[in-house]
Amino acid sequence: MPIKDDVQLGYDVCIFHPDLVNLYGCTVGDETRIGTFVEIQIGAKIGARCKISSHTFICEGVTIEDEAFIGHGVMFTNDKLPRATTEDGRLQGAADWQVETTRVGRRVSIGSNATILSGISIGDGAIIGAGAVVTRDVAPGDIVAGVPARPVKSRTDEPT
Amino acid sequence: MPIKDDVQLGYDVCIFHPDLVNLYGCTVGDETRIGTFVEIQIGAKIGARCKISSHTFICEGVTIEDEAFIGHGVMFTNDKLPRATTEDGRLQGAADWQVETTRVGRRVSIGSNATILSGISIGDGAIIGAGAVVTRDVAPGDIVAGVPARPVKSRTDEPT
Amino acid sequence: MPIKDDVQLGYDVCIFHPDLVNLYGCTVGDETRIGTFVEIQIGAKIGARCKISSHTFICEGVTIEDEAFIGHGVMFTNDKLPRATTEDGRLQGAADWQVETTRVGRRVSIGSNATILSGISIGDGAIIGAGAVVTRDVAPGDIVAGVPARPVKSRTDEPT
Repeated sequence: MPIKDDVQLGYDVCIFHPDLVNLYGCTVGDETRIGTFVEIQIGAKIGARCKISSHTFICEGVTIEDEAFIGHGVMFTNDKLPRATTEDGRLQGAADWQVETTRVGRRVSIGSNATILSGISIGDGAIIGAGAVVTRDVAPGDIVAGVPARPVKSRTDEPT
Repeated sequence: MPIKDDVQLGYDVCIFHPDLVNLYGCTVGDETRIGTFVEIQIGAKIGARCKISSHTFICEGVTIEDEAFIGHGVMFTNDKLPRATTEDGRLQGAADWQVETTRVGRRVSIGSNATILSGISIGDGAIIGAGAVVTRDVAPGDIVAGVPARPVKSRTDEPT
Repeated sequence: MPIKDDVQLGYDVCIFHPDLVNLYGCTVGDETRIGTFVEIQIGAKIGARCKISSHTFICEGVTIEDEAFIGHGVMFTNDKLPRATTEDGRLQGAADWQVETTRVGRRVSIGSNATILSGISIGDGAIIGAGAVVTRDVAPGDIVAGVPARPVKSRTDEPT
């Protein structure tokens, strides 16, 4: 089933197409809206009144605070050097790697198609440009864009 | 239902997996082909004989003219500063923001994983490289690539 | 049906949500794991013990050797100048273009949201950074990142 029984949903969570998402073992806060073709993995924590847009992947180890906007096609990661197999060629299992955690602050806005490397902290109110690849921490209120993401300017109403 | 009754489809529109798309309130022209895991929002207008490839998101405010090719994983946007909530912490509603429109000209080709910022005009026959982030208007026939997208050269048969 | 009868699956292939993938005419090796919202086209060949992560698109003409890791939202391509229609405005058919092949070597790791242009060879053990756009061949063991992807440094345990 695309929304597993172990998912903890707050009240008034809105999942537009429950048959076209893949949620398991995660926590989703009150009134958060989740788009189509979204996957949220075990242990991920989404706050209240967030918007998780279509085609986005939120992995184990990610915590998103309240009122964050996550655009479409945003990919989080939790492993700097992901592998399919161990050095001796066996399938990697849970014991063969360690989750690196990521925190997305309150009222952060992440643009569509952005990629967030593992072990990153994005401060409250920061803005990540569409298509950015975030490779280091982002300070609260900062606006970053590009590959790799660099500060654009301090926060204003109309970033470009 | 993944294709809502309010969708206006021309004749011979081909949707490869109707159960694995999310179309609502949009218009799709004759003979256009739509791949899997595609979302097309209310008010979006797709011309005739277009190809909309898998994993692509086309939002409200986007108009795509005839014979355009939209690659896989292409994300359109319609808001320069998307937010989940208003300044006072309520969920954003339709009255709290304004759609910025985007136009994609006739016979445009947009490469896979490209991101198109809001309020953009892409001229007829232009080519957008795979992975580009388009932050400003693209003139007819121009070829752009990169983050942010910049002109590569004038149009030839074999862009790189 | 999202997994067509013409798909050749090895033993112990794990497809987490068979109803939320689109596989047709492809070959998948033993013990390979395939995530949700994945499309694999006709003629694509995936080796054994690979991991194909969610939201990824693998097109005709792509061969992936054993033990490769393909991240989330990775887009392969097989046409340098994709078009919806021919010069005279008819829908493009199979006779109107030629597939350009791509090879991904053994134990390659491709980061999330990467885009792989057509006709590319990625050597064994190479690492492609998240969000990279790969526009040229990658030598065995090389680490590349960025748009377009450039070598970062020679291989170590901890690329950045």
